[in-house]
Amino acid sequence: MAVKPKVSLVTLGVRDVDRARAFDECRGWTASSDQGTLALCALEGGVLGLFGWDDLADDAGLPTSHGSGFRGQSLDHNEPSPQDVDRVFQEFLEAGATVVKHPGRTPWGGYSSYVADLDGHLWEIAHNPFSDWT
Amino acid sequence: MAVKPKVSLVTLGVRDVDRARAFDECRGWTASSDQGTLALCALEGGVLGLFGWDDLADDAGLPTSHGSGFRGQSLDHNEPSPQDVDRVFQEFLEAGATVVKHPGRTPWGGYSSYVADLDGHLWEIAHNPFSDWT
Repeated sequence: MAVKPKVSLVTLGVRDVDRARAFDECRGWTASSDQGTLALCALEGGVLGLFGWDDLADDAGLPTSHGSGFRGQSLDHNEPSPQDVDRVFQEFLEAGATVVKHPGRTPWGGYSSYVADLDGHLWEIAHNPFSDWT
Repeated sequence: MAVKPKVSLVTLGVRDVDRARAFDECRGWTASSDQGTLALCALEGGVLGLFGWDDLADDAGLPTSHGSGFRGQSLDHNEPSPQDVDRVFQEFLEAGATVVKHPGRTPWGGYSSYVADLDGHLWEIAHNPFSDWT
């Protein structure tokens, strides 16, 4: 049997679950929390989990909970037009995200920006005229 | 207007795109690559991107491409039974993943394991009897 090609849940380690939940709710996303230490945000086609940074490390049995530098990962949110990218980029900033890269044209013909959320997780907000992932 | 609750794409920075693509294909996942430096793996409800570690840092305009320690993130793959977790855990290992936490019962009544893929990205392989995310 093969393994179903599915990521059931993306879990982000966060310093303060309530703060991260408010960050998501600022963008109109609905987050539920059933245990106080874990928030779940239903997505189209998946679930985004917000879990205490140390709790997530403990859950995996990892000896250290503090990393530094580039994490080699981005969560990409695509929009149907460059104007929508500009709007959503601003909405992320208003929710407390910090600018990593301002919106602009890319060499491959798209339009892209990057922000870091409250816990430093990298989000790309992009328009891709060749693939409709909106 | 609100922001659609959607992560369009999860992009993992990897040291060798072809190697990471083979890792995914070992599990029966189909990865396509249109530029040689980026592989895309269609998921149910999303896309998993494999992108050169340094390329991803460059794309975000980040000054350093090397991080260390816990990254505060896991990609969770849920299965319908503990037996399926055991099987998929083995399939990940056969594809080259390393053990982070062997499968076992969790305090919250589930059954869970963790592995690290070829580039150190954390995957949880779990059975959750309370939420069907399979």
